[in-house]
Amino acid sequence: MVDSLISRRDLEFLLYEWLDVEALTKRPRFQAHGRDSFDAVLDLSRELATELFAPHNKTADANEPRLEDGRVRLLPEVAVAVHAFAEAGLVGASMGEDVGGQQLPRVVAGACMALFQAANAGTTSYPFLAIANANLLLAHGSPEQIERFVRPMVEGRFSGTMCLSEPQAGSSLAGVATRATEAADGSYRLFGNKMWISGGDHELTENIVHLVLARIPGGPAGVRGLSLFIVPKYLVEADGTRGERNDVVVAGLNHKMGYRGTVNTVLNFGEGAHRPGGAPGAVGYLVGQPHRGLGYMFHMMNEMRVGVGLGAAALGYTAYLKSVDYARTRAQGRRAGRSDETQVPIIQHADVRRMLLAQKSYVEGALALNLYCGRLIDEEQTTADAESRERARLLLEVLTPIAKSWPSQWCLRANSLAIQVHGGYGYTREYDVEQHYRDNRLNAIHEGTHGIQGIDLLGRKVVMEDGAAFRALRTVLTESVLASARCGGELAGFGAQLQSALDRLVTVTDQVWADGDLEATLANSSTYLEVVGHIVIAWIWLEQGLAASDQVGDFYDGKRQAGRYFFRYELPRVWAQLDLLAARDRTTLDMADAWF
Amino acid sequence: MVDSLISRRDLEFLLYEWLDVEALTKRPRFQAHGRDSFDAVLDLSRELATELFAPHNKTADANEPRLEDGRVRLLPEVAVAVHAFAEAGLVGASMGEDVGGQQLPRVVAGACMALFQAANAGTTSYPFLAIANANLLLAHGSPEQIERFVRPMVEGRFSGTMCLSEPQAGSSLAGVATRATEAADGSYRLFGNKMWISGGDHELTENIVHLVLARIPGGPAGVRGLSLFIVPKYLVEADGTRGERNDVVVAGLNHKMGYRGTVNTVLNFGEGAHRPGGAPGAVGYLVGQPHRGLGYMFHMMNEMRVGVGLGAAALGYTAYLKSVDYARTRAQGRRAGRSDETQVPIIQHADVRRMLLAQKSYVEGALALNLYCGRLIDEEQTTADAESRERARLLLEVLTPIAKSWPSQWCLRANSLAIQVHGGYGYTREYDVEQHYRDNRLNAIHEGTHGIQGIDLLGRKVVMEDGAAFRALRTVLTESVLASARCGGELAGFGAQLQSALDRLVTVTDQVWADGDLEATLANSSTYLEVVGHIVIAWIWLEQGLAASDQVGDFYDGKRQAGRYFFRYELPRVWAQLDLLAARDRTTLDMADAWF
Repeated sequence: MVDSLISRRDLEFLLYEWLDVEALTKRPRFQAHGRDSFDAVLDLSRELATELFAPHNKTADANEPRLEDGRVRLLPEVAVAVHAFAEAGLVGASMGEDVGGQQLPRVVAGACMALFQAANAGTTSYPFLAIANANLLLAHGSPEQIERFVRPMVEGRFSGTMCLSEPQAGSSLAGVATRATEAADGSYRLFGNKMWISGGDHELTENIVHLVLARIPGGPAGVRGLSLFIVPKYLVEADGTRGERNDVVVAGLNHKMGYRGTVNTVLNFGEGAHRPGGAPGAVGYLVGQPHRGLGYMFHMMNEMRVGVGLGAAALGYTAYLKSVDYARTRAQGRRAGRSDETQVPIIQHADVRRMLLAQKSYVEGALALNLYCGRLIDEEQTTADAESRERARLLLEVLTPIAKSWPSQWCLRANSLAIQVHGGYGYTREYDVEQHYRDNRLNAIHEGTHGIQGIDLLGRKVVMEDGAAFRALRTVLTESVLASARCGGELAGFGAQLQSALDRLVTVTDQVWADGDLEATLANSSTYLEVVGHIVIAWIWLEQGLAASDQVGDFYDGKRQAGRYFFRYELPRVWAQLDLLAARDRTTLDMADAWF
Repeated sequence: MVDSLISRRDLEFLLYEWLDVEALTKRPRFQAHGRDSFDAVLDLSRELATELFAPHNKTADANEPRLEDGRVRLLPEVAVAVHAFAEAGLVGASMGEDVGGQQLPRVVAGACMALFQAANAGTTSYPFLAIANANLLLAHGSPEQIERFVRPMVEGRFSGTMCLSEPQAGSSLAGVATRATEAADGSYRLFGNKMWISGGDHELTENIVHLVLARIPGGPAGVRGLSLFIVPKYLVEADGTRGERNDVVVAGLNHKMGYRGTVNTVLNFGEGAHRPGGAPGAVGYLVGQPHRGLGYMFHMMNEMRVGVGLGAAALGYTAYLKSVDYARTRAQGRRAGRSDETQVPIIQHADVRRMLLAQKSYVEGALALNLYCGRLIDEEQTTADAESRERARLLLEVLTPIAKSWPSQWCLRANSLAIQVHGGYGYTREYDVEQHYRDNRLNAIHEGTHGIQGIDLLGRKVVMEDGAAFRALRTVLTESVLASARCGGELAGFGAQLQSALDRLVTVTDQVWADGDLEATLANSSTYLEVVGHIVIAWIWLEQGLAASDQVGDFYDGKRQAGRYFFRYELPRVWAQLDLLAARDRTTLDMADAWF
């Protein structure tokens, strides 16, 4: 099997040599597992991704979902792939055995998911959304809701969506207007329109479970008045069979630049297309308490964001491998100063190697960060050590905006470099890389834009709990720096470089928060996000260097060289940005509308 | 007329307040012109671009050229637009009256062209290629060739192409294999295959003039053995009427990520589809001397490269204007710390203003640089002052790789920011910006990749004629710095910042060339290209600041603020890159193939 999705060797390195995932099997939750079962699910995922997902990636891009007589039409290959995914038990990969899951660590399930995202981001969205939906209900739904809606998702009979945005409320959920009024039986009736709903309608599964943010009239204004509802496409009878059609209907499809395999919909709730139980409105069931919907959604959103970052890394990774392959086989030109040569494979050219090495440093760094976050989720959920659990929780808080935004930015850049390595061919649809580039451009937008992540990091995560999350981050980075100092040599030098960037970051963070002018503090939060992102990824490369130290062979040499690349070409970018932050630059604030 | 292509006010500022284009009318070549005629051709261009080019930009993207029974099918709107362009005299805008041209300055013709590129890059390619083709023949063709082939292009009856690449020879033209054998009558017969030929076949015009690089057997190997030929699709009779079908046929179309409106073809020459005059081979006519073809082509290629940069700037510009418009009308969220506000237009958010201001600094900077280059062409071709002509020639040499690559990189980034400002909407094909982004991605590839431009700048332009071109660049930058010092205040500070970057660049350039290891010198030529690019654009912003100094009003305030943005957010990026260059970093050279 060609290794064109994500390097198997790299996954083994990250999971077993760096993150010591085998140690998790000593914990009660994972005691049925061992490296054998981890490897087996990775192998199975690779096989399914390669044989059922990758082959229709381009076809699905070229043949978008269509809306015909109110029904969404997808390619038949999508259903085959999605069903095989569920039949392999992968929807419930990390869920408990009590709901039919495999009870695997999140970090292993994440590695599996990345293989599918690399193979076909569009089709993988369907199970991705079902998993996110199910995880939310497992955390906040009632036992009866879990039985009725989660189990069928784990079995692959139902799929799921997240319905937050509305046409007038995208980044700002305070503007959500969908209403939910309580019915006599304790259920609700929903009325409103939702926008950008991926997987919002299709016939891949017998039912679709929508999780919908809406307002119960009389509740608080703004985001504190949002409640969360389960709104199934078809009502579910007490015995679990499919009941009446609910009043949620697709009103239109969005036609995107990429991610075309994922149907993206406008959904109307309660506009009268159906009258379940003879009454108006879409039937919905409240999840948890009224007005707490956003908190529930954000519990899930954080996992979604790590998942988006993982997907961005996966798209970067597969394009990287394809461009390495192309560079090894395409002969063109001679090396500088070697006019006596016959044409050489372009991988011999320094500038091509720069483009490959940059990609390697971005995609392997991003994958490692997101698997690390998966490992943190496992730690938070399964460690018996309260201190370690607390540290994992704090690190997840502060790392989530980075894990989401950094891959979205830099693995997109990797995709652009993959196109560039292919030259004109890379710009054509005959090769894969242009689609990866188009697909990946979405990741800086959905599940919280880049700008939102910056505000989340600087405005919330860095200062939360008196700076506890930021301190936790500093602590783990400093531990790695100390380890690198013990290693000595080149790694110690990189460690020192990281420490001085971190020290400056700490100073600058204080400066940015020095006065009470919140608008000025947050004015350059996107720059702050990028700085912290580069520092975190430098740390990830230091960590990989430590895991590779004393190891011999091409694989480890490659890790070391990619680490060098990051410390020499990338980390130094942050200094100019730190200066800008320290200056509390007001250029954007002072810009007047009329001056554009 | 909505100003959504390129700001008319900005064009007036650049042409009249900064470049003093009116002064050109004192020269014999332009004496028939004045500001009135310049404005008239700009108005006409804007009108045609808006009414005939922009409306089918999306349609042409969604309905690519098709090959049916060997014939290329385009949308009918393309022909209407292309004919109107020619009928307005715009193919010959800058050509001499002797061939039916308008004899306008290049810089004015460039401003007109940018309007069309902003409106519809795909359709504009057809006249763009005809102009480049005609200019090459005007410089190197015989009077008879000019009469037979250039005049009909000026009249819009013929179109033109450039045929350099072959499937096995893209960036490396040394590998060109197309053969040309001399016939008894002094014409040639060509045999071979050409790749990536934009406008390679269609029925927009009665004939297509291909300019083809090929080898005359017995000539030198490599690029010194390439000759240039005119190969018309149909032979042209002595009286100018269309003759026999020549043996150049379209073998297939390339399907691209963007620029879909421009048909891109594989062409076969002399494969026997036709037998003009009863003999095998495509009939071709030698341009100039044998084996000098690459030199002729590169004379043209430099103008093409400035044109590509101009196109990249134009695509960035129109998307910028559209995103400003969107940001003014889309209400979403409140400003930081203003939870009492009702929703505000997103232009009120600092991070959105950052994205708009970044775009403004990129696209206005790129447009200004490319118009400056157009002004240099005018200077080189029309000044009576030998010193000024020499300086213009040298500046053009050293600025061409920047003028091509910088807009291709940064106006693409501007397009990405334009998408981001639009949020999810920007990612859909309902809005324009995603297409501009896809279209613009081509510009770092064609007419010499980014990597090629870096090698051209560092390996050739910086050292040519004992560094004369690089010295000329330093001189003009230093002159502006001195002017800014005389201005005082903020501009003097920016000038000092520019001077120190320039000084460091000069030192680093010497260091990079310090030993005889060419491979090491060129290893980071792409980084060198980016550094010089940012320094040059900072200079362009200093120049605009000087032109705006003492001027009052929103427009000038906007120029000043965009200049501040560039000096505060952008120029400081170069320092880390200069450190890398000074270290003669070998990371990419030391990377082994097996380590990827």
